Amino acid sequence: MAPQLKDELDIVIPTIRNLDFLEMWRPFFLPYHLIIVQDGDPSKTIKVPEGFDYELYNRNDINRILGPRASCISFKDSACRCFGYMVSKKKYIYTIDDDCFVAKDPSGKDIDALAQHIKNLLCPSTPLFFNTLYDPFADGADFVRGYPFSLREGVPTAVSHGLWLNIPDYDAPTQLVKPRERNSRYVDAVMTIPKGTLFPMCGMNLAFDRDLIGPAMYFGLMGDGQPIGRYDDMWAGWCIKVICDHLGLGVKTGLPYIWHSKASNPFVNLKKEYNGIFWQEDIIPFFQAVTLPKDCDTVQKCYVALSQQVKDKLGKVDPYFTKLADAMVTWIDAWDTLNPGSKATANGIAKGK
Amino acid sequence: MAPQLKDELDIVIPTIRNLDFLEMWRPFFLPYHLIIVQDGDPSKTIKVPEGFDYELYNRNDINRILGPRASCISFKDSACRCFGYMVSKKKYIYTIDDDCFVAKDPSGKDIDALAQHIKNLLCPSTPLFFNTLYDPFADGADFVRGYPFSLREGVPTAVSHGLWLNIPDYDAPTQLVKPRERNSRYVDAVMTIPKGTLFPMCGMNLAFDRDLIGPAMYFGLMGDGQPIGRYDDMWAGWCIKVICDHLGLGVKTGLPYIWHSKASNPFVNLKKEYNGIFWQEDIIPFFQAVTLPKDCDTVQKCYVALSQQVKDKLGKVDPYFTKLADAMVTWIDAWDTLNPGSKATANGIAKGK
Repeated sequence: MAPQLKDELDIVIPTIRNLDFLEMWRPFFLPYHLIIVQDGDPSKTIKVPEGFDYELYNRNDINRILGPRASCISFKDSACRCFGYMVSKKKYIYTIDDDCFVAKDPSGKDIDALAQHIKNLLCPSTPLFFNTLYDPFADGADFVRGYPFSLREGVPTAVSHGLWLNIPDYDAPTQLVKPRERNSRYVDAVMTIPKGTLFPMCGMNLAFDRDLIGPAMYFGLMGDGQPIGRYDDMWAGWCIKVICDHLGLGVKTGLPYIWHSKASNPFVNLKKEYNGIFWQEDIIPFFQAVTLPKDCDTVQKCYVALSQQVKDKLGKVDPYFTKLADAMVTWIDAWDTLNPGSKATANGIAKGK
Repeated sequence: MAPQLKDELDIVIPTIRNLDFLEMWRPFFLPYHLIIVQDGDPSKTIKVPEGFDYELYNRNDINRILGPRASCISFKDSACRCFGYMVSKKKYIYTIDDDCFVAKDPSGKDIDALAQHIKNLLCPSTPLFFNTLYDPFADGADFVRGYPFSLREGVPTAVSHGLWLNIPDYDAPTQLVKPRERNSRYVDAVMTIPKGTLFPMCGMNLAFDRDLIGPAMYFGLMGDGQPIGRYDDMWAGWCIKVICDHLGLGVKTGLPYIWHSKASNPFVNLKKEYNGIFWQEDIIPFFQAVTLPKDCDTVQKCYVALSQQVKDKLGKVDPYFTKLADAMVTWIDAWDTLNPGSKATANGIAKGK
């Protein structure tokens, strides 16, 4: 029986352009509460099929709820989904794009992506030493010879990054060069991304423990009025990874797969990405070198400390990063306002008074 | 067509107790030269089936060839296989245990392990950033969105660590607790172990570029007269990893699988391992903290510098490590005597005069 966390998990979806999407996921999503964050024109209405328990936020709602702090939430970009993370009151979040459908495993069975994410989040991670048989907590697996016993307890898992069959998550240049490439390789593994290693986190099929890492899951300033797009999840991924490493939390990648149905337009993507492709050559060395002060013992403190370093170091690359650093602080401010007394720490959530 | 490196690769086997072993591998190994290093009583004769091109070394040969330096080669332990690495004149080594048979892939086809190792070694590694679709050089795969373009060239691959179906490579305590566990999970992936991350390297199914990393592939002092066994490959794995990280070389793990036919006796293993299980709690933090001086620009220099740190830091854990550190220096001395003028560097082999 797949584990369920009915009362502890929200599904966050940035706009639904395709009604088939929810119909296809109905058997898996129906027990859960949905938070839909509409990324475009608020006068348009998103039709949600009958039976789903959901709340929907458009730009007017975001402006009303956050007031001036709404400036930190992107507009006309799926980065707006992070508003849903903030208004959720649940421990876990699963976020998925509306062009992601149910995939099949090699035996032809529908994959319950959510069940696998929950498994991943409920099992410890092992970031301090690599296990060559992958997830030591998977059925039929364990730690191999030479794995130090003191490290086998692992650390709490904060993030579960799922993958995609069919259309791979390529950047615009790779899309242009390999328009026909499809991912058909089902890799039957979950693994912990080692401590000190960065990875490209994709927001298409992503789950996390909001109590452990929520305040760092900010998708940045993208889309309308910004010089960059399609780096929202990447930015969040680099931030959460250095903070997880600092706080002793784990990040997993691998199973579950979803079926990514549609390649986005590579020409449009190129326009959104070209600054990011250039800037990431500075961003990655920056994140590889970041160290957070020892007294940063909550996600919020880590994130604010990180924003200061972003301003100091990446502000020189482009003024955009100064604006982004300010937005990071606004985000934390907004998070704390909507989630009073919650301070995410490595030992789970410490409820204040 | 699988790549072959007929004139550039030797297969090193520590003793052959089982004649079926070579018969089973005949279609794959026949084109290659075998180096068999007999690990026990030199008066016994190993029968090699007809048709194979091989050389065989027993203890008398090792003593004759190395003289007093033969002390660095273990006796009555499969760790003696590293003598074969030293006497080989080829660029690549594949080493395999005699209880490892040809495995089948999920389609039922025999796996040509050697061909996959060669692929792994000939393709670059990507230790500086994690690719979520695993090996970006595999068919149908690439670097995903957010992977810095400057890092896509990768680095030369020094080591390819293959895995095992059926009997997993567990330590004695895990063997005792889970006597019936079998590995039936075929994970269709090759990945680079990230820079700064240690892993448990198993010598059962292992290939490497002798020119790039050979002098660090020392399997230590195990077996007869030593307080430890079954840590030969682990020791080599920790040494090669920190040296590869220092020199900018890559280490891969994953495919190919072999079929590991027979679990070794867990009681015997426990006797061999108990010191190692205890010591590795100090060994791992030691290797995690090791830094090599910048002027160590060859494997040999790195290895000698490492041996000094082993002596200084691990010598306090047990006098065994002082002896091991001395043996590491003897090994390099013997390597350089048998391989005059070869200095393995990150840019391949630089033949001196």
